[in-house]
Amino acid sequence: MGGDCGPAEVVVGALEAAGDGLIPVLYGSPGIDTKGLALVETAGVIEMDDKPAEAVRAKPDSSLVASVRAVAAGDVDAVVSAGNTGAMLAAGLLELRRIRGVMRPAIAVPIPARRGPSVLIDAGANADARPEHVVQFATMGAVFAEEMLGIDRPEVRLLSIGEEPEKGNQLTLEAHALLAESDLNFAGNCEGRDILAGAADVVVTDGFTGNVTLKLLEGTITTLLDAFREEIAANTRGTIGGLLIRPAAHRLRKRLDPDTYGGAYLLGLRGLAVIAHGNSSHVAIANAIRLAARGVEHDVVGRLGSRLAQPAEAV
Amino acid sequence: MGGDCGPAEVVVGALEAAGDGLIPVLYGSPGIDTKGLALVETAGVIEMDDKPAEAVRAKPDSSLVASVRAVAAGDVDAVVSAGNTGAMLAAGLLELRRIRGVMRPAIAVPIPARRGPSVLIDAGANADARPEHVVQFATMGAVFAEEMLGIDRPEVRLLSIGEEPEKGNQLTLEAHALLAESDLNFAGNCEGRDILAGAADVVVTDGFTGNVTLKLLEGTITTLLDAFREEIAANTRGTIGGLLIRPAAHRLRKRLDPDTYGGAYLLGLRGLAVIAHGNSSHVAIANAIRLAARGVEHDVVGRLGSRLAQPAEAV
Repeated sequence: MGGDCGPAEVVVGALEAAGDGLIPVLYGSPGIDTKGLALVETAGVIEMDDKPAEAVRAKPDSSLVASVRAVAAGDVDAVVSAGNTGAMLAAGLLELRRIRGVMRPAIAVPIPARRGPSVLIDAGANADARPEHVVQFATMGAVFAEEMLGIDRPEVRLLSIGEEPEKGNQLTLEAHALLAESDLNFAGNCEGRDILAGAADVVVTDGFTGNVTLKLLEGTITTLLDAFREEIAANTRGTIGGLLIRPAAHRLRKRLDPDTYGGAYLLGLRGLAVIAHGNSSHVAIANAIRLAARGVEHDVVGRLGSRLAQPAEAV
Repeated sequence: MGGDCGPAEVVVGALEAAGDGLIPVLYGSPGIDTKGLALVETAGVIEMDDKPAEAVRAKPDSSLVASVRAVAAGDVDAVVSAGNTGAMLAAGLLELRRIRGVMRPAIAVPIPARRGPSVLIDAGANADARPEHVVQFATMGAVFAEEMLGIDRPEVRLLSIGEEPEKGNQLTLEAHALLAESDLNFAGNCEGRDILAGAADVVVTDGFTGNVTLKLLEGTITTLLDAFREEIAANTRGTIGGLLIRPAAHRLRKRLDPDTYGGAYLLGLRGLAVIAHGNSSHVAIANAIRLAARGVEHDVVGRLGSRLAQPAEAV
């Protein structure tokens, strides 16, 4: 039921993923046309502007809460939602609970950086974070990069406003000191300018800065590609040139389009949850489902659990 | 002496600005070849990694501090520097002092948004800010948009992680409440995704988030345009198309290139200071000087002073 485009879009995305041999199970209101996919009928919908914790308590049989509970019950291997992110977090905390040792779950997003994939964490689960939370986000991000992206001893950098350790706000100054003492492969601060080029294997930040960063990155790419298209179409010469470069533009757009990576992992819970954009197209939904499947195949939850249970071991 | 490219680059930029009828005065070490421009000889240089407040006290005759003092003395109308931003702020506080009523100076950057220019404030003067500071940044940004960009009753939005008032961190939640009560034309929160498209006439945020935002915006534009060029050059068809769209690409790059807007205003001081990027080219330096000249023509400092002295009046 989540997502700005309505259930029909989600159904089309799920059908696409089903073509890959995955088995989508839809959780939603009775009467939805699922085109033959399994439907678990639920009662009530959590809206995008509902207050997360209240909504999760008030609507325990909503599609969002019921689908998260299905992961806890083992009915399904993972949950994907384009609904209210805060409510997904609240439902995850309530129904799946945290992995032992995790203070705060965090959102990890694979960024299609130019030098290769890079993990941004926390992309929005915790609007306010303490320095020790940031260190744990970095640890979860490093495990994610190692297990899911196959990066050996991933390099971690802290997003700040200068590369020097003394540049930053109170939170990053303290987090920097803790990261430097940790067993992580911490390489210091990075700046916003480096993110799309590829600042590090893992870019760690608080959820406020991470969410602003993620949305800015996506919005800037979209706006820029649109502006370019418009500029090209402004005259005949440009239009002909535009036809010739269309394959190149298409490759670039495909590589950078948020729809291509589709979703973000909510890490730190005892079950796998993938959050898709509210405005996800069917393509984004399909890719978010594939992302969830990859997380299941790589047993991200199990590996996070075993790594976080051994704090002495270098990640 | 500031800037990663060395004094020679600054001299070339100053010469370009001199062609517009402006009179650049260079502050720097004896022996610099200023190509005929006036040189005020200074002793010592503040480095990019010097601690701002310490360096300003320890090097009172450095090019940076001497040039700021020249504004206070009325020897020049404004100062432009590609040097250490923190030191510019510290020197400004010491030599120019704050406008009456200003708690914290802030950095205002004109963003070349798609729907027209937009002011981002604070882009990095205050890594940690309180809610009442954010409101004052918004006021300074609104005066700036009105006086410099000619926007009547500029719309102000607060950068956050959701449009709803209850979305944000502790700082933005409190700042939102204060902004809603203010006389500003406050239109609520905006998100990172809207910045380049044009979120509002004034986008207000704390200096940490603003600095990450500004650098991310610039870095993403640069990385994306470079990636696009590379993708086009990958085969003959693309190369020919690339030649045809070159004028369109050039127009877009020129409009969005950080070098085109060149610099940022340090607002809230009793004298005009423009901060250029550390890696400024001569083009950026020339544009930063032009930006300073426009600020002088529009009497930004005087107008900020008279507007901030009348807190009851709607800006």
